[in-house]
Amino acid sequence: MEIKSAVVALSGGLDSATVLGEAISRLGIKNVLSVGFYYGSKHNAFENVAAENVADYYGVPFNLIDLSETFKGFSSNLLLSGGEIPEGHYEDKNMSLTVVPGRNIIFASILAGYAWSMGKNSIWLGIHAGDHFIYEDCRPAFYKQMNEAIKAGTGNRVSLYAPFIDDTKVGILRRGLELGVPYELTRTCYKNSPIACGKCGSCQERRAAWESLAKEDPTVYEYTGPLFEKSV
Amino acid sequence: MEIKSAVVALSGGLDSATVLGEAISRLGIKNVLSVGFYYGSKHNAFENVAAENVADYYGVPFNLIDLSETFKGFSSNLLLSGGEIPEGHYEDKNMSLTVVPGRNIIFASILAGYAWSMGKNSIWLGIHAGDHFIYEDCRPAFYKQMNEAIKAGTGNRVSLYAPFIDDTKVGILRRGLELGVPYELTRTCYKNSPIACGKCGSCQERRAAWESLAKEDPTVYEYTGPLFEKSV
Repeated sequence: MEIKSAVVALSGGLDSATVLGEAISRLGIKNVLSVGFYYGSKHNAFENVAAENVADYYGVPFNLIDLSETFKGFSSNLLLSGGEIPEGHYEDKNMSLTVVPGRNIIFASILAGYAWSMGKNSIWLGIHAGDHFIYEDCRPAFYKQMNEAIKAGTGNRVSLYAPFIDDTKVGILRRGLELGVPYELTRTCYKNSPIACGKCGSCQERRAAWESLAKEDPTVYEYTGPLFEKSV
Repeated sequence: MEIKSAVVALSGGLDSATVLGEAISRLGIKNVLSVGFYYGSKHNAFENVAAENVADYYGVPFNLIDLSETFKGFSSNLLLSGGEIPEGHYEDKNMSLTVVPGRNIIFASILAGYAWSMGKNSIWLGIHAGDHFIYEDCRPAFYKQMNEAIKAGTGNRVSLYAPFIDDTKVGILRRGLELGVPYELTRTCYKNSPIACGKCGSCQERRAAWESLAKEDPTVYEYTGPLFEKSV
């Protein structure tokens, strides 16, 4: 099934902004739509604004879908209803506190129905190798099966594509810098604060990627001290 | 993966009420939860009430999730935003006007995340052989792939089960009558009216099932004339 058009899941973070840049560069701006979700996470208010700014920068439509009612009974420290956001290395075990049960299954499903409704034949997600350790619904096995489920459930009208599924955050950033993705507009931190903390797993992974390429991250962080070591 | 507990998708129709009866009879009432969706369909207000009544009858918790924001941009005559509900045989081609793009993909995904959050290890859907002709996301190929996607995405915490996937509506009704399902509380009609029309594909299929078993449907229909023939 040749991909001709796309609905991109745009969280407002580094990965999804790069996916949007990639989709536009491959398919042309007229064939791309973007969708964000408000689902009651601590950083939603900030990341939704970032996503809208990134979409505006590119000039693609952005549809924000309110799922706060859906996720009301769900348990996760990522949500406003949950406990503290853990700090530390992004592959530490306590990062599993930030798992939102079934989040990407749900996002992918809604995107598939929306793409079908809007006459777009693929949905793009920013899942990547760095997500695999903690998040089951970011792993290649899930991606492959979910693609088959979506194809079957939409009568082959829509497929799922994750351009960076085998890439690291560093690889995504390298590609995004080539594409000129406006990273100054993105938001990565998981915490409920306008300034990125620099200490949560999400900030740590982002900072590590920029350090690894010896480039300067335009994000302002509250904590700019050394990156955390991975706990045993 | 042995099924020990269930979240049942409860639309308030004949199929899902039977699925709930089946789940309770196999797993015990303490291990069963039910979930309904408000997604902006013409019959939602009526079917959601029916679902709640069925859940109350059995004494199982019922969680109604509001997805009207999610389905706002979707195209379907089933929705309040769409055109007329078609009348005729339930396998007529014009019944595809009632397809809601990706509906069961989305429902299954949300149920999976909810089941994980609530510590239940399966989700049950009422899809059956009579749905296969019109609805791609009711076919065995979809069901099989979606189950794999959910298992992968939840780390094998949750699986998808459709007890009547290979059954007809007649088979479901026969089983439900054995189980004593309170069909007088259910609602099947697709139209935006408190009295079932008797003419939409959904009413026609239900009426045909009762006729086929020579039993009296407790539903009051506006039109009680002969069932429609299938168009060529």
